[in-house]
Amino acid sequence: MATTKIVTAYAPGTVANMVCGFDILGFALHEPADQMTLSLSDKPGIVIAPDEEYHLPTEPEKNVAGASLIGMMEAWGQPIGFELTMKKMIKPGSGIGSSAASSAGAVVAANHLLGNPFSKEQLVQFAMFGEKVASGVKHADNIAPCIYGGVTLVRSILPLDIISLPSPNLFVSIVHPQIEVRTADARAVLKHTIQLKSAIKQWGNIAGLVAGLMKHDYDLIGRSLEDHIIEPVRSILIPGFDDVKKRCKEAGALGGGISGSGPSIFMLSKQEDTAKQVGAIMADVYTRLGIDYHVYVTTINQQGIRLA
Amino acid sequence: MATTKIVTAYAPGTVANMVCGFDILGFALHEPADQMTLSLSDKPGIVIAPDEEYHLPTEPEKNVAGASLIGMMEAWGQPIGFELTMKKMIKPGSGIGSSAASSAGAVVAANHLLGNPFSKEQLVQFAMFGEKVASGVKHADNIAPCIYGGVTLVRSILPLDIISLPSPNLFVSIVHPQIEVRTADARAVLKHTIQLKSAIKQWGNIAGLVAGLMKHDYDLIGRSLEDHIIEPVRSILIPGFDDVKKRCKEAGALGGGISGSGPSIFMLSKQEDTAKQVGAIMADVYTRLGIDYHVYVTTINQQGIRLA
Repeated sequence: MATTKIVTAYAPGTVANMVCGFDILGFALHEPADQMTLSLSDKPGIVIAPDEEYHLPTEPEKNVAGASLIGMMEAWGQPIGFELTMKKMIKPGSGIGSSAASSAGAVVAANHLLGNPFSKEQLVQFAMFGEKVASGVKHADNIAPCIYGGVTLVRSILPLDIISLPSPNLFVSIVHPQIEVRTADARAVLKHTIQLKSAIKQWGNIAGLVAGLMKHDYDLIGRSLEDHIIEPVRSILIPGFDDVKKRCKEAGALGGGISGSGPSIFMLSKQEDTAKQVGAIMADVYTRLGIDYHVYVTTINQQGIRLA
Repeated sequence: MATTKIVTAYAPGTVANMVCGFDILGFALHEPADQMTLSLSDKPGIVIAPDEEYHLPTEPEKNVAGASLIGMMEAWGQPIGFELTMKKMIKPGSGIGSSAASSAGAVVAANHLLGNPFSKEQLVQFAMFGEKVASGVKHADNIAPCIYGGVTLVRSILPLDIISLPSPNLFVSIVHPQIEVRTADARAVLKHTIQLKSAIKQWGNIAGLVAGLMKHDYDLIGRSLEDHIIEPVRSILIPGFDDVKKRCKEAGALGGGISGSGPSIFMLSKQEDTAKQVGAIMADVYTRLGIDYHVYVTTINQQGIRLA
């Protein structure tokens, strides 16, 4: 059997939670995207080339991509060797699915090199080993959209149940203020119990968001982008958050909020012009605050990981 | 202006909550339906004919239909007189929207007699005065499907935001065991706080149910009909509940649970034959328990209230 010996996976950033859909919703971006170059090797095991920018661990079990590949290799059951070179374009700790992109990119590339023996759902399972290394929790709300593309719902983790949600054209503006919010810290500020009446508002909005996406009803999408539970607690960790949200919505954004566990903030817009203006507002807020930042203006990536 | 002087509204029963959508989802049934006959009268005010079966209050402000009409008359602002005769086909306290049917039927009939000055959303607002009389809470999860038909989402009460959800053909089996569960009692057993991890499961299922309905994905609908929060507490008030649920699902029902605050139990099926078999199982369970019951096998009513 002839197999490709080397492949590069372009694994996009992702926005988890989508404001009201904590731990269940997410969508893929066109940019930024990690470049994960994987080749088959005659020597069984995983060799990870050091990356010069972020000095990520090169021991496979401590590296998110390595841990994901280990998970896949155990399922494969035959001796196999991989060599991995990563060009990280998504900064670790940005809140736009950096660890998910590396985890998912590695296993999608490996699956291609092996002749596609595994399903998308299995690939999500393997990449969740990487998320466990990154944050201590096996979650799939970034991995699912990275692999499936578009907007995804993780209805359940055990058993894993991923549903692709159709969505209309949406432009995404994202600002990554260069401050550190560790996923573990962002999880620690959450309360274990919540008010039933807040939960009812939240699930009304989640149902509204899913219906709005599927009906291509932009107003309903905007009305549903409210979070009564997570955002009030987590946004305290992100300087400038309230200002960004208020000014971006005034400029015509449908709505938005914290991307994943932050510190990145995303906003959705119906028109590209609005999304660009929203990006400029984000830049202005952090310029005034004297905090370094990076702004992306992009769209929802319906394809997910691309191989080349 | 020529106006119709008398009209009868056939106001259907409704199933609120739909298992995972506590306080936000509901759907209308083809049967049973209350018959609300309303006529214009020269004498301002509301006259309610006594009903012989249930001896409901005839003072307008204590009667759910009367309270709803009072709400509408205040918005109308001109002196007007109504005479109402009700033929209650939905037993009060059954959990299939008896008070909502009477409340909604009265205001939809009155709106017709006045030349349709009010929108559906306004009619829901008026009928919520009836729900307040019935249960002390102004909720819309039965009224919305009664007036709009089909499956409805009440995304928010303040401001009121009702969204019609497209749904595939679904057959509905309902059993009303003739025991009393007061809405107020069913609310009292609920805890004010819930676990965040339970809430996440719940909103995953709500998102799955909305997506399943809109995609016509029967399996997804079935998988999403799970309630980790309300059902474990409320089902204790309904003898036979676990048995009904287990046996109906074994017989091929997609899923189901408590209708509204109970004691009725509903099950959804893809095929009419399955729904009939499910109805027979429901009858068998309560026959064995020695509890009187009534079984309905019907479909989702896409029209809502019908006037004649």
